[in-house]
Amino acid sequence: MSNPPQHKLRADGGAYGRPPAHPDYELTHVGPGTPCGELMRRYWQPVALSSEVTHRPANVRILGEDLILFRDKKGRPGLLYPRCMHRGTTLFYGKVTEQGIACCYHGWEFDVEGRCLLQPCEPSGGRNREVARQPWYPVEERYGVLFAYMGPPEKKPVLLRYDIFEDLGSAEELRSDSGGFGATLDESLKIVPYSWLQMNDNAMDRFHVHVLHSTFSIVQFVPEFEVMPMVDFFTTPNGVCYSAKRKLEDGREYERLSSWLVPNVTCIPNIFDIAESKAIRIRWILPVDDSHFTMVTVYRMAKSAPPLVKLRIKGKLWSEMTDEERQDAPGDYEAQAGQGPISFHSEEHLASTDRDIIMQRRMLKAQIKVVAQGGDPVGVKFDPDEALVTVSSGNFYKTHSFVNQT
Amino acid sequence: MSNPPQHKLRADGGAYGRPPAHPDYELTHVGPGTPCGELMRRYWQPVALSSEVTHRPANVRILGEDLILFRDKKGRPGLLYPRCMHRGTTLFYGKVTEQGIACCYHGWEFDVEGRCLLQPCEPSGGRNREVARQPWYPVEERYGVLFAYMGPPEKKPVLLRYDIFEDLGSAEELRSDSGGFGATLDESLKIVPYSWLQMNDNAMDRFHVHVLHSTFSIVQFVPEFEVMPMVDFFTTPNGVCYSAKRKLEDGREYERLSSWLVPNVTCIPNIFDIAESKAIRIRWILPVDDSHFTMVTVYRMAKSAPPLVKLRIKGKLWSEMTDEERQDAPGDYEAQAGQGPISFHSEEHLASTDRDIIMQRRMLKAQIKVVAQGGDPVGVKFDPDEALVTVSSGNFYKTHSFVNQT
Amino acid sequence: MSNPPQHKLRADGGAYGRPPAHPDYELTHVGPGTPCGELMRRYWQPVALSSEVTHRPANVRILGEDLILFRDKKGRPGLLYPRCMHRGTTLFYGKVTEQGIACCYHGWEFDVEGRCLLQPCEPSGGRNREVARQPWYPVEERYGVLFAYMGPPEKKPVLLRYDIFEDLGSAEELRSDSGGFGATLDESLKIVPYSWLQMNDNAMDRFHVHVLHSTFSIVQFVPEFEVMPMVDFFTTPNGVCYSAKRKLEDGREYERLSSWLVPNVTCIPNIFDIAESKAIRIRWILPVDDSHFTMVTVYRMAKSAPPLVKLRIKGKLWSEMTDEERQDAPGDYEAQAGQGPISFHSEEHLASTDRDIIMQRRMLKAQIKVVAQGGDPVGVKFDPDEALVTVSSGNFYKTHSFVNQT
Repeated sequence: MSNPPQHKLRADGGAYGRPPAHPDYELTHVGPGTPCGELMRRYWQPVALSSEVTHRPANVRILGEDLILFRDKKGRPGLLYPRCMHRGTTLFYGKVTEQGIACCYHGWEFDVEGRCLLQPCEPSGGRNREVARQPWYPVEERYGVLFAYMGPPEKKPVLLRYDIFEDLGSAEELRSDSGGFGATLDESLKIVPYSWLQMNDNAMDRFHVHVLHSTFSIVQFVPEFEVMPMVDFFTTPNGVCYSAKRKLEDGREYERLSSWLVPNVTCIPNIFDIAESKAIRIRWILPVDDSHFTMVTVYRMAKSAPPLVKLRIKGKLWSEMTDEERQDAPGDYEAQAGQGPISFHSEEHLASTDRDIIMQRRMLKAQIKVVAQGGDPVGVKFDPDEALVTVSSGNFYKTHSFVNQT
Repeated sequence: MSNPPQHKLRADGGAYGRPPAHPDYELTHVGPGTPCGELMRRYWQPVALSSEVTHRPANVRILGEDLILFRDKKGRPGLLYPRCMHRGTTLFYGKVTEQGIACCYHGWEFDVEGRCLLQPCEPSGGRNREVARQPWYPVEERYGVLFAYMGPPEKKPVLLRYDIFEDLGSAEELRSDSGGFGATLDESLKIVPYSWLQMNDNAMDRFHVHVLHSTFSIVQFVPEFEVMPMVDFFTTPNGVCYSAKRKLEDGREYERLSSWLVPNVTCIPNIFDIAESKAIRIRWILPVDDSHFTMVTVYRMAKSAPPLVKLRIKGKLWSEMTDEERQDAPGDYEAQAGQGPISFHSEEHLASTDRDIIMQRRMLKAQIKVVAQGGDPVGVKFDPDEALVTVSSGNFYKTHSFVNQT
Repeated sequence: MSNPPQHKLRADGGAYGRPPAHPDYELTHVGPGTPCGELMRRYWQPVALSSEVTHRPANVRILGEDLILFRDKKGRPGLLYPRCMHRGTTLFYGKVTEQGIACCYHGWEFDVEGRCLLQPCEPSGGRNREVARQPWYPVEERYGVLFAYMGPPEKKPVLLRYDIFEDLGSAEELRSDSGGFGATLDESLKIVPYSWLQMNDNAMDRFHVHVLHSTFSIVQFVPEFEVMPMVDFFTTPNGVCYSAKRKLEDGREYERLSSWLVPNVTCIPNIFDIAESKAIRIRWILPVDDSHFTMVTVYRMAKSAPPLVKLRIKGKLWSEMTDEERQDAPGDYEAQAGQGPISFHSEEHLASTDRDIIMQRRMLKAQIKVVAQGGDPVGVKFDPDEALVTVSSGNFYKTHSFVNQT
């Protein structure tokens, strides 16, 4: 794989004269026109929860682009370039109307797809307004989430469905949340200050669960995780799967199947309730820019289920811990943020336990290449009949053979 | 006019693949040696109020240059390069003396024109001090304001006079203030965090008054402004004028004449008291640097007049408003700051209502060219007999024909 | 001397058109591979007090390099590159163990010289761990201070001894402190926000003592300093010395000898107690990076001596003073910080009273050249028998002839 060349250590391993370090830009730069940015843009991305899209314009930053998000008085959501096409004032100060949004400066009004409806001070309300357009992106709502497509319009795919979120029982519902990170469920951190890749590397990294959250630190998950698993990784057409099998003390054989889908979708089974079940949640790691990301998660829950429990370490939320407490009980955040805002991949020495990361990165780079050469990356569908994704992740007991396509 | 080429929209107007945006650097970069900076430097600029020039050295930043401002014990003002010519310590920590200022480090003393008076630790107080000079700029006081000339010394013009500030009656006085912006009269914002051009564009932009301050938002000015004016713009030798005529409900014809003088001087008639009168104030938009400016205004008032009223929106000063309140009642600041620290002029789509801005920018660029080719820009005078400017701005009723030269 | 060319003043000394200013990069840039950085790296540098090296990992920044400092459970100190060689997580969140430190992410354990002891998740604890090495620097403790050597390993010298710190009497002890600056003894400023050179220039600059601390400001030192000294500077093999002789009012002749050793070591006699004595302290000016430094000082004191007195100006510590109070009573900090984060040496006009600075800088540049050409700079010893430095600094009365080598 075309990873940056490994750092060559001096014979005595000293720090003097070590070469300059650098990130893998191909996987971490996400702005318009960048390799990874163009891959991300080929997929619908979840940019906000539906409940966050209101009649009050909101600033959002996605894949390095600052945009305005709002819902017109008819209920239609819009995602627009913020600088009014007239003279550049941000639509953040615009007034939301029945059919769109009007800029505060001279009142130019646009609908949710950027069509100019009115230029109040111009003769006849603007004789050329039909050819005037505020740059915009298409959006669609599903599962309580607002998805946006920021790629080339002629290659816009259908918005996918996931089997685990369909056919809900009468006692079930879908919930969604945004922000937060890792296993701490601490949503105080809406925007996480490091590269999306450092979270994506972690998603499949099951060994660190053993060290970081169990043996190493205080026990943060369920006791079953104390046992070292037998791990198997394999690629699928759309991503990477891993199976972790454990023989438990009570004789049961417990298999945990997790999956990652190109480019930034994870489906990890429940960590706290490991009864036999398919996974109940899907999480997107959404790059905000090169050194920030956020996350959007959809859950399938019983209507009666209480809100998700925030993890506490010695009674404190992560956001309440001091630096010293974090040194004493480091978690996902410390491990990942500790790599820097964008890690220096040139200094990595990947080991046998990093096979999942190697697989994931290899697949990302291959798909980046496909896109660069004009093709369609895996997982992108144009036919509505192909829009349903069958998820394989879950907690399974006794025997479970892996059968399906993701 | 050599504006940056207009942004070419995609056929469907989508935001994908839009070209990079950029400012008009020619009109916004103001440092030494830049086109606009060199134009600005050909004129005396108001750098502070006389009352702000004291025996305590003050830091000021003007046209991208950090300087020290003080008044020696004899009352003479000085504007010096701050880094002592000896070894660079800032004269901000200097001690003001009878005849100048002495650096705190080794006591080198300079007068208000940078002549070195003493080098205490050197033999004979400094044998070469006569050729030693702390870089300096000439200053002059008038109308309660300290003006500085930061251009080539051999082209220093006379400091101008304005007819509306001369021949005061016994019951009249001149007042001055610095800082603040637009129509809110909120002086909490001494240095405004965006380019001078975004304020300069606004000065003549009368349509936004109708939208931003009246129909669009809550009513912020006098009711007469609800009526859409008949507007006429025309250039004069030294700038741009505009005439806004309104037929009022009571039958009167009301003409409002405003003027802008190259490069950054505005003379806008009273907004709150529109009785027949010439304009009573002149305002300079002083670039602090490329993305900041401040303003200095001189007013002619009755001695008995109370202090100027700060505008309140729903009882609050602008500086007390929350983000949400500013979204609900946006004013000049939101409209101008909302264009960014330096607007991206390459994305503008100027319309028929922007004729004034087009005229102003065209004139600025023409004068920038004159200066670059070694000539003298308009409005610069070297003969004291030509130092008086006759201002034409004002609120006028019935008939008023425009007769004079500015 | 190859100082940047002097700023050429315009005939009238005006500030218009002055050339751009710049630092002397050769003496101020201290990162790996820079001329000054490579000179600094040839010497053991004091990076922390021994008391600051604990079982809790600490972040330190030295010569532009971010490092981790800790003491393993056996009491051995370690200075490591912070990014774990596995996947880059900072060892700041590592767990200190009996024999080293273990990364929080996957538990890789390293000893204080970076040898990899264990890779917990790898088969057999890591089959290749013997060739794995976390980049490290050698450290040694002496005089209550932790010294580090960050230069080429094959040129590592012996750690020096100083005669004034040897052979302590039973009633004597060595104390050490870090941070702080100049004569104010205010340790609130651990890391000082300007270039090390601005402090180094000050160390020998005795004239400013007369102006800045005495005549100019309020009296900050002892009355004897009011008298202008007869100063003599001379180079020694390892640095620069200066002798300041004063004839006191009571007839005594008082000589004060101070020395500076290449590249950043100062030995200044006691300022407050000027009884006859060799100097009792040595201070290192340690560059943190190009625009920050800190200091480490070792003192020889009586065990019964009270803690050092913090200087108060009108009853306030420096850190408690307002901007205006600092303008009224400027000290070393104002004079040095007032030159900027890195001074613009191209604008200097050095005078006869700056001979010491000229000597010091000339010697630094000469030693920089020696190192660049592969030689050993002065003061570096490889033979333990040559490790003792005889210091000449002190306060002396009647006659004192300068006899020794530093």
